[in-house]
Amino acid sequence: MNVLEWTGDELLILDQTRLPQSEEVLRCRELDQVCEAIRNLSIRGAPSLGVTAAYAVLLGARNLGATDEGSLLCGVDAVCEQVRSTRPTAVNLFWAAEEMRGAARRSEGAGVEGILASMEDRAKAIESDNEERHRVLCEFGAAVIPDGASVLHHCETGPLATIDYGSALGVLHEAHLQGKRIHVFVDETRPLLQGARLTAWELASWGVPYTLITDNMAGHFMSRGKIDMAIVGADRIAANGDTANKIGTYSAAVLAKHHGIPFYVAAPFTTIDFDTPAGSGIEIEERRGDEVRGFRGFLWADADASVANPAFDVTPAELIAGIVTEAGVARPPYRESLQRLRSPAVPVA
Amino acid sequence: MNVLEWTGDELLILDQTRLPQSEEVLRCRELDQVCEAIRNLSIRGAPSLGVTAAYAVLLGARNLGATDEGSLLCGVDAVCEQVRSTRPTAVNLFWAAEEMRGAARRSEGAGVEGILASMEDRAKAIESDNEERHRVLCEFGAAVIPDGASVLHHCETGPLATIDYGSALGVLHEAHLQGKRIHVFVDETRPLLQGARLTAWELASWGVPYTLITDNMAGHFMSRGKIDMAIVGADRIAANGDTANKIGTYSAAVLAKHHGIPFYVAAPFTTIDFDTPAGSGIEIEERRGDEVRGFRGFLWADADASVANPAFDVTPAELIAGIVTEAGVARPPYRESLQRLRSPAVPVA
Repeated sequence: MNVLEWTGDELLILDQTRLPQSEEVLRCRELDQVCEAIRNLSIRGAPSLGVTAAYAVLLGARNLGATDEGSLLCGVDAVCEQVRSTRPTAVNLFWAAEEMRGAARRSEGAGVEGILASMEDRAKAIESDNEERHRVLCEFGAAVIPDGASVLHHCETGPLATIDYGSALGVLHEAHLQGKRIHVFVDETRPLLQGARLTAWELASWGVPYTLITDNMAGHFMSRGKIDMAIVGADRIAANGDTANKIGTYSAAVLAKHHGIPFYVAAPFTTIDFDTPAGSGIEIEERRGDEVRGFRGFLWADADASVANPAFDVTPAELIAGIVTEAGVARPPYRESLQRLRSPAVPVA
Repeated sequence: MNVLEWTGDELLILDQTRLPQSEEVLRCRELDQVCEAIRNLSIRGAPSLGVTAAYAVLLGARNLGATDEGSLLCGVDAVCEQVRSTRPTAVNLFWAAEEMRGAARRSEGAGVEGILASMEDRAKAIESDNEERHRVLCEFGAAVIPDGASVLHHCETGPLATIDYGSALGVLHEAHLQGKRIHVFVDETRPLLQGARLTAWELASWGVPYTLITDNMAGHFMSRGKIDMAIVGADRIAANGDTANKIGTYSAAVLAKHHGIPFYVAAPFTTIDFDTPAGSGIEIEERRGDEVRGFRGFLWADADASVANPAFDVTPAELIAGIVTEAGVARPPYRESLQRLRSPAVPVA
């Protein structure tokens, strides 16, 4: 089952809102279709959003019907703006759009077809680069998972969120493949239940023992000594290590701190935003209230109940024991360690 | 709308599993019906369970059809055992069953009708005593809510959980009635969503401003300075102040501690179990897995997903700033303060 597939003229997106009950594929030929798939979380997870954004820009550029370079390049700027406006928090999306814009600019003089060909090459390179980053990241990460560990995980950070391998969940999968006996406590991750729907289903398919819990149970199991460590993904990491991730991550990190449990983040360098010095600079997406009032149109609260729905929160660097990247595991202080790892990292494709 | 009503030969129970979408009343003439209503949470909340247990024992005793005192008293023992077996954590249920057994025993010699009449008097007295306890508790509690406070609340602790007035939520209602401007952050309280379904609906009906959030958002709002204090109810409080309450309470208390936010518990003395020295002695009910896999038969996780479903957790006394009772607000150390308040407390009816 492919999370995302570029056929040469269509972008096939596995509709994650339908999982695990049904496997439906969205066949996107229009930019608007891809943007809608991003907004409604048919595709989600910072690295997956990066690759999707690249192909979205490509589709949008092709569909401009531009007959000269000037209008193509001008149109690409508008396409990138539309892609960037879908969701505000995951930096990979902005990064990939900018990469695609740069590829177009650098091919100026190659003609409309030449520029579009360069953009397609760039999108494919972003995809394969993303795969390689996560493959290496999982190997580095597996080293921090002790044999016999019971590990808390929040949201979904496997192949669905990254297209290949996974970040935090990929690390756990790799540890399992290496023969380590692990057990995963899976936060269901309200409001959109990525843990209950996706992570539990992926772990089951891999044969990794797990226990699905509601988000408010993690503290209870920590207090009873049932959880040894935690690992999560990231939607954006500031230069100082402050990490924006799915709402609930911060609470889990505070609970881990209180119980003396190491709390790890796993994410590729494409998720690290060196232009944002600290977490306070990260915009947090506010999503629609019905996601909190119920689930998928089944409302258990009053339809006009007053709600808040921040999709992410920011975990300050001081609560994070290590950040697993494709260049190794960064340790505090992160401003220095992330910069140090950055240089010899797997080069951006 | 009555939460519970004894008509003289039927126990009418408002089915809380149907709220707020519909108001259905269960008309119970049989002990088994009441026990089922307790088990499936049609009626819930420690104080409400106490009053319900009293009438359940009365119904069960009447339906024995006993023709002599000996078989009536022996039958009452069995009835109490059945009522006690419905749910293991709320101590009020055990307390009320024991009160009813004592009332029957003390009337030995009055004949079958005399004993049953004493038991009915006792059940009614437990109900009115419960009402008076909560009325006074709310007045004491309102004094700890500052004007302008933004308060986190978990689960449901209003009239539905206590039949009258409420405990933690009753305190907030009383503060509102006194003219204090408060705002309540309402934890939705997975898995059974008492906050989303019941608390938000009660606050709206009272005109108290509130914001419904998923349980994993509380830490985020604390970190942004949006929450000034927290107040919750209790299902059982050990002699040292350790408090068993709805799952998620412990996590909220740890988060409050981390942010320097006072965390209060509100409960009548019928919820305090002086025979249990510490929280480690409190049995935690494990409920069925489908409650975590979905909600009301709508499963979003796989039907065979591996889950845990502890209904309660234990918050250690050191995380609790004060315990609001009908005899005043107990402060640490609780072993002493609870004992001190106990003596001049509203006498048990």
